[in-house]
Amino acid sequence: MSQRLARLLPCLEWARQYNRDWAAKDGLAALIVTLMLIPQSLAYAMLAGLPPVMGLYASILPLIAYTLFGTSRTLAVGPAAVIALMTASVLGPLFVTGSAEYMAAALLLALLSGVVLLGMALLRLGFLAIFLSHPVISGFMSASAILITLGQLKHILGIQAYGANALELVPSLLQNLPDSHWPTLIIGVCTLLFLHLTRTSLAGWLIARGISHSRATMATRCGPVVALLLSTGIVWTFDLAAAGVPVVGSVPQGFPPLTPPALDPGLAMELLPAAVLIGLIGFVESVSVAQTFAAKRRQRIKPNQELVGLGSANLAAAFSGGMPVTGGLSRTVVSFEAGAQTPLAGALTAVGIALTVMFFTPLFQNLPNAVLAATIIVAILTLLDLKAIRRTWRYSRQDGAAMLATMAGVLLVDVEFGVMLGVALSLLLFLWRTSQPHIAVVGQLPGSEHFRNVERFAVVESQKVLSVRVDESLYFPNARYLEDRIAELVGQHPEAEHLVLMCAGVNLIDASALESLEAITSRLQAAGVQLHFSEVKGPVMDQLQRSDFLDHFGGQIFLSQFEALVTLDPQSTQRASAMPRIGQGSQSMAAKENERAS
Amino acid sequence: MSQRLARLLPCLEWARQYNRDWAAKDGLAALIVTLMLIPQSLAYAMLAGLPPVMGLYASILPLIAYTLFGTSRTLAVGPAAVIALMTASVLGPLFVTGSAEYMAAALLLALLSGVVLLGMALLRLGFLAIFLSHPVISGFMSASAILITLGQLKHILGIQAYGANALELVPSLLQNLPDSHWPTLIIGVCTLLFLHLTRTSLAGWLIARGISHSRATMATRCGPVVALLLSTGIVWTFDLAAAGVPVVGSVPQGFPPLTPPALDPGLAMELLPAAVLIGLIGFVESVSVAQTFAAKRRQRIKPNQELVGLGSANLAAAFSGGMPVTGGLSRTVVSFEAGAQTPLAGALTAVGIALTVMFFTPLFQNLPNAVLAATIIVAILTLLDLKAIRRTWRYSRQDGAAMLATMAGVLLVDVEFGVMLGVALSLLLFLWRTSQPHIAVVGQLPGSEHFRNVERFAVVESQKVLSVRVDESLYFPNARYLEDRIAELVGQHPEAEHLVLMCAGVNLIDASALESLEAITSRLQAAGVQLHFSEVKGPVMDQLQRSDFLDHFGGQIFLSQFEALVTLDPQSTQRASAMPRIGQGSQSMAAKENERAS
Repeated sequence: MSQRLARLLPCLEWARQYNRDWAAKDGLAALIVTLMLIPQSLAYAMLAGLPPVMGLYASILPLIAYTLFGTSRTLAVGPAAVIALMTASVLGPLFVTGSAEYMAAALLLALLSGVVLLGMALLRLGFLAIFLSHPVISGFMSASAILITLGQLKHILGIQAYGANALELVPSLLQNLPDSHWPTLIIGVCTLLFLHLTRTSLAGWLIARGISHSRATMATRCGPVVALLLSTGIVWTFDLAAAGVPVVGSVPQGFPPLTPPALDPGLAMELLPAAVLIGLIGFVESVSVAQTFAAKRRQRIKPNQELVGLGSANLAAAFSGGMPVTGGLSRTVVSFEAGAQTPLAGALTAVGIALTVMFFTPLFQNLPNAVLAATIIVAILTLLDLKAIRRTWRYSRQDGAAMLATMAGVLLVDVEFGVMLGVALSLLLFLWRTSQPHIAVVGQLPGSEHFRNVERFAVVESQKVLSVRVDESLYFPNARYLEDRIAELVGQHPEAEHLVLMCAGVNLIDASALESLEAITSRLQAAGVQLHFSEVKGPVMDQLQRSDFLDHFGGQIFLSQFEALVTLDPQSTQRASAMPRIGQGSQSMAAKENERAS
Repeated sequence: MSQRLARLLPCLEWARQYNRDWAAKDGLAALIVTLMLIPQSLAYAMLAGLPPVMGLYASILPLIAYTLFGTSRTLAVGPAAVIALMTASVLGPLFVTGSAEYMAAALLLALLSGVVLLGMALLRLGFLAIFLSHPVISGFMSASAILITLGQLKHILGIQAYGANALELVPSLLQNLPDSHWPTLIIGVCTLLFLHLTRTSLAGWLIARGISHSRATMATRCGPVVALLLSTGIVWTFDLAAAGVPVVGSVPQGFPPLTPPALDPGLAMELLPAAVLIGLIGFVESVSVAQTFAAKRRQRIKPNQELVGLGSANLAAAFSGGMPVTGGLSRTVVSFEAGAQTPLAGALTAVGIALTVMFFTPLFQNLPNAVLAATIIVAILTLLDLKAIRRTWRYSRQDGAAMLATMAGVLLVDVEFGVMLGVALSLLLFLWRTSQPHIAVVGQLPGSEHFRNVERFAVVESQKVLSVRVDESLYFPNARYLEDRIAELVGQHPEAEHLVLMCAGVNLIDASALESLEAITSRLQAAGVQLHFSEVKGPVMDQLQRSDFLDHFGGQIFLSQFEALVTLDPQSTQRASAMPRIGQGSQSMAAKENERAS
């Protein structure tokens, strides 16, 4: 029982060893992360189309939930840009942005994401994340960065613009461009420049002035909070809000409301696919970030328990007026660099945000939206990785196609469509690739017992025995291809009496492939050719013995291809073995002529 | 140009060599198939909820179209039971069975199937059939057989019953059972018995009386046509139609109407998924039947051209008042056994059916529906393969689960849902399986240069060098698993300074896996461990060189694992090489303790 409890509450493990040194480090990290999180949570709430305070609410209880249930010692949980974009993307077409229904639906979305993540933990479905291949995630991130930037430009320009995708946003922006509000634009551009310079040059400048590397880095992370304070001061001083600069306005003060989200079953069904996607994408991102940092200290995270941690964080968000949350990269980096030792740093950050909500929200009254938009743009553009597209395309056409399709889908239709398109295309291309495995006719290398591809090496082929090597497991995507190819090969070798299938590369024969082997056997027998196998791996042999195939297929199982030839066509084998071995040079010459190798 | 024409019209090939001997054989085969096809086409039209004559219409022009465009020399195309069931299953919920709209939709469905098949041929998408794994097809067939039998029982009993699945059909049958019409029931049961006996015992009885084997077999195939003639005679003689025995009734006489099907775009979109499924399932069935018989004569069929053949057959059906068609097993067997030499046998069959439609339809006026139902039941129950379920389950739990899910879906919901469920589950289980490849820590076999699994063999492990073998290509389904497992293994080997990945079983490294390798490299470096590779295959190496991974990962690529150890930990290697080789006996003892082998 206590072991099960320890598994469910990973915090029990580090809590027992907790000491003053850890507390000091966790406290410092929490302070810095809090200063980063205040502008970020306000900005991401705005990005999600929600009142800024909901971002703060989502940065209190969810962080405590993750502290209790999460396994990463450094992951910083809270609102995140892509999750916020997805929230806006799913809720935008359904409700008026900022309406009470819109906010209620955001809470329901957080609830559903939490339930989905916990359900996946319970059913051990974390492996579903494998569907999100790297090119899909990467394409999704880059396209999201472009889409988010386009969406935030209206705040920088001080204009209105609407649209769920680039096709709608760009014309809307261009149409309203003449209405740009100059004071807003100046604040926005200055903030962009300031944040960009802080990010790119401040650390170097500080280090050159003798500040330690880690402190300099941490100082740069406070850029957004400085921009927030400065701009609020300027707006307040010159009463720019009255001059038409859009500001955050009145933010309710006090602790988040602890109410269960309204449960509308019809709406819940409508939001479910998006909730699954938000949960999965958040999970994939969190786990990869958490693993990166865990590895640096040779710690381990447990992906299944991470589902519990993130799931409970989302539930906590749903019950305390927040928005969907996940683990974010930028704050995790800072937390790690500031020396966070345990997830308690997250709980301490929550305390910082709680204090902010209770005492400092009047400060945000005069915070310009343009500053929040600039914060988002500068942060999100780091996700835009255009080089990755070229690199991926160059490395593999299939992966490149999946990436481009995801990007096009996200930019031109919407986030859900783009990710689904990418996943579907990855799967299809993957199955297509695995459906046509490399199948080679092999012959004996003169003077050796080895067998190599006849198209790449000067080998001796037996007239009586057709040797065929398959470089892939035999399963349903390629079962019928195997039938086709073998029929073709037998058609090309009319004198063959035996066909030996070399199975060194076969890790699995599933029921479809078994059925194909049955069909191949009987078709070959009808054509006067007997099927045999060589080099069958142990587990494959074990499984074949659970069927009656081996009893009636009529051929033999040879330990090696050489043994098969010795038994079935001793003359050819003796001749080949007696021949002088061909030099390595000429072999690799032959090898170069053909792309598909070995 | 003439080569392209020859590819498009495979009939040109055999037409040039056509001779009198072939004509005689084709003619005989056509006669026998015609006698089989008359009751079958009437029955399958009834099964599809269509007027019987539409089955006859679907057996004229479609056969001629396949003769022109198909590549199988023996495949008999026409209405088929499962395709008819699917037609009823998709149209039943939309329109009143037998109404004008229902018939128009059936034509539209044939049109769409034809267009889908031709489109797949054009885009070379025949490989999409790989999604239909054997367990899914087999489960679908068995469940269809049960569902069709349940659906036909009402005709045997002379009652009404409705329902798209077993949950609806069985209660409906039981409720109306008391209304059974005794004369109909007697005719139905007698026909079932007669057909069953013809099928099981007639051939043996005839052979015992000195009739040749092939003639006896062919005689049994005429059972249905004899039942048709006998029962019609009895009904006519005793005027049983007036006594309430449901009969086919008036069948229009004359050639099929050559009209284009009505094109309703909304309905077309609604029918499209079903049309894709009908096309794919028909294609898979046809190709596997055609391949079986082509192999017997060492002929080849071209799957892509088969798409053209079947597609044009369905188009022909749509334009001549027919129903969706495909290649059927039972008639193909008969055609082959009767000695059909070329697809001209199909065209001659079409002539036979055309003559029937023009002159003999008045014969069917008094044909009892119960006889057609009995024909269907006796034919379809041969598809019910309950042993296959046990066999598949025993061979592989995953394949068995996909099969059972398909059956349950078809029986309890409907055909489309069942097949989709099966396909989704196959894919999911396949990805799940491939997502957790066998990864073994290996050590040096004493006295040799070979490396084997440390859990199965008494091998020497280096403290400094961790040797890891992956028995699967590295791609997105397992990329993250690889990260996890390597992190775990490194955690278990704190003294390790090097990790060498043995890649003999790796046929592919895709972009996701490359990204994982980057992550693994940097995490290992952070933990003070250097990554290396050994035994990388040629094509994998070629692809890796298209990225910059090899330039910066910091490790080496070794030709063999032994070479890696010699370089990285010479002392351990020398010790292991100097040790006496362990006998084969003790190795295989160790091997038996562990299920996953080598």
